[in-house]
Amino acid sequence: MKKKWLFTPGPTPIPSEALLAMAQPIDYHRSEDTVTLIKDVLTKLKHVFQTENDVLFLTSSGTGGMEGAVANLLSRGDKVIVIRSGKFGERWADICTAFGIQIIPIDVTWGNAVEPQTVETLLTENPDIKAVFATLCETSTGVLHDIEALARLTRTRPTLLIVDAVSGLGADDLQMDNWGVDVIVSCAQKGLMTPPGLAVVALNQRAWDAVECSDLPKYYFDFRKAYTSGLEGSVPYTPAVTLLTALQCALNRIYEEGIHNTIARHSRLAAATRSAVKALGLSVFAASPANTVTSIRLPEEVDGKAFINLMLDKYGITYAGGQSQLSGKIVRIAHLGWVNENDVIVAIAAFERGLVEIGYDIPIGAGVTAAQEVFRSFKY
Amino acid sequence: MKKKWLFTPGPTPIPSEALLAMAQPIDYHRSEDTVTLIKDVLTKLKHVFQTENDVLFLTSSGTGGMEGAVANLLSRGDKVIVIRSGKFGERWADICTAFGIQIIPIDVTWGNAVEPQTVETLLTENPDIKAVFATLCETSTGVLHDIEALARLTRTRPTLLIVDAVSGLGADDLQMDNWGVDVIVSCAQKGLMTPPGLAVVALNQRAWDAVECSDLPKYYFDFRKAYTSGLEGSVPYTPAVTLLTALQCALNRIYEEGIHNTIARHSRLAAATRSAVKALGLSVFAASPANTVTSIRLPEEVDGKAFINLMLDKYGITYAGGQSQLSGKIVRIAHLGWVNENDVIVAIAAFERGLVEIGYDIPIGAGVTAAQEVFRSFKY
Repeated sequence: MKKKWLFTPGPTPIPSEALLAMAQPIDYHRSEDTVTLIKDVLTKLKHVFQTENDVLFLTSSGTGGMEGAVANLLSRGDKVIVIRSGKFGERWADICTAFGIQIIPIDVTWGNAVEPQTVETLLTENPDIKAVFATLCETSTGVLHDIEALARLTRTRPTLLIVDAVSGLGADDLQMDNWGVDVIVSCAQKGLMTPPGLAVVALNQRAWDAVECSDLPKYYFDFRKAYTSGLEGSVPYTPAVTLLTALQCALNRIYEEGIHNTIARHSRLAAATRSAVKALGLSVFAASPANTVTSIRLPEEVDGKAFINLMLDKYGITYAGGQSQLSGKIVRIAHLGWVNENDVIVAIAAFERGLVEIGYDIPIGAGVTAAQEVFRSFKY
Repeated sequence: MKKKWLFTPGPTPIPSEALLAMAQPIDYHRSEDTVTLIKDVLTKLKHVFQTENDVLFLTSSGTGGMEGAVANLLSRGDKVIVIRSGKFGERWADICTAFGIQIIPIDVTWGNAVEPQTVETLLTENPDIKAVFATLCETSTGVLHDIEALARLTRTRPTLLIVDAVSGLGADDLQMDNWGVDVIVSCAQKGLMTPPGLAVVALNQRAWDAVECSDLPKYYFDFRKAYTSGLEGSVPYTPAVTLLTALQCALNRIYEEGIHNTIARHSRLAAATRSAVKALGLSVFAASPANTVTSIRLPEEVDGKAFINLMLDKYGITYAGGQSQLSGKIVRIAHLGWVNENDVIVAIAAFERGLVEIGYDIPIGAGVTAAQEVFRSFKY
């Protein structure tokens, strides 16, 4: 009896009411019902972004939102800092380069977060830096960046802080207004528990001022058009109506739980997973691990790809492997979105049995026991 | 008992098996099942595009595909012809302008198609024209353009023909290979009977040669990345997995019917609708009407907006009104995608009763009778 479990850091499991909402006959995107839907979604997103700024959405994956941030915020000849500590930091750099922006990269060893001091030194040496591009949770390594510390550096300077919160939003704390983050980009298929196809972006007033000056070419990802339409529950182009319907269902879940509780839940699940990893005699790859996903360093004698294929083919369990230089070397277990304690227990228990089956000796049961202990320590 | 009917030229009704496929738990976009899904979808799209060229897809609405065509095919300083005969011809011009391309517009009175002779004269006067941007079905007016005639002009010249077939694909004939069309852009939520969020694009070899030379900035809409990934059933960025699942179901319908029969069905439905319009003493707005949508000129004494609101609010029937300069002056009834004779009868019958209710005198029953006569004349 194979039964599928999805533990990848996106797409993440979709609540059943959201799945069923998408199976309803489709509505016209200019209908009053859709206007109400869009307004409700954008209002509830503000809660998740922890901001009073209005949020805009685009019909694209998160990378489209990232391109939009580059094309709408920057101008020809701009110089920016890009923190590259994994695959998604590299993506910021690639997009900037594609648009002719001069980048000053900060290359961080994969598995580590950037030292805010490094950013501060560069900012002081280069007062003409237009923006710092950072990543909340670097999904490829499971590392959490200290966005609050970075915002402390940028908010007193004429430098924008532009954050990829694609996987981290709704799992790792990100206080847009309190911290003074200028731009946040995220998308539907991670903490927002919705199928892929929607990007969501929030900008503060400093960021909108930069948008007014930007001279890079853009059309589909034009933030001003998306923003002004969105305020009226409208869209410049046909949006992914079914995905908006699903997103509304998912946002209702976060809204009812409250974003602080949502983040606290992810924090518990991540702590339990890390505790299990240690109890099994293994180690977490990330030096500063995120709530979003736990990256586990595999023993050298374990073939990571074979392990992941075994779990998927024989048991229907999808873990994510390592990307690029980490291929075959780590396993990433997401605890992200529509997940709770029971999902984490399944993830760990299957992980234990899989390692034993592939011939690696671990103290079976120690992982789930450690996780149970962590769960017991919290007050519900 | 209000019962919804959607007669807009996008989104169009979704087959029930496609709706239910989207309600299944979501799959990982790097899974083998998704690889198989993507390959199957791209293969079946070739049938719909009537081409041997491989098709690529993007997670965006059709406008994203249009921007991709501009950003991937053209270079700085290029000069292009844009046929503007409605809102979507204007969109080509707007995108080109946003990317700094020099346009020579051909402005056609709304409701008419371009005269190929006009294009030929311009091409002869300007041998350095890089591309002609055209629209198969101009959705805002219901006009069909003679793409075959335009291709006859471009295929013997070093000029690309780039066609917006967003609403027309699968309803109006478009023989990419036989006619020699260089680039076709379309999307999911029209003839392809899938919710919005996917754009589909096909390029021939001449077009790919232009892509190699293009120097305009692009990242998310990079055609080469989408194309080479797609050949292996992969994607550069997380795609709209649920929409691909729905698209597969919808493509199975077209594949089983056969694209020529699909187009013939749309042709019958359009002919019946036009015949009904005339029998009611009204006229079709488009001089060369498309199979996709029929635009009906309303009598001056009928308030088009009030009529459309009445039908929607009281009866749950969504017709599309006029856009921009045609607002309130026309009604557009789509017969597009997952529709057959019975849907058209409902569209016409409700239209008749609505006109009577709003106080305009028409020979009730004459429309549906005329449509029935047209259907009887076809051999099934």
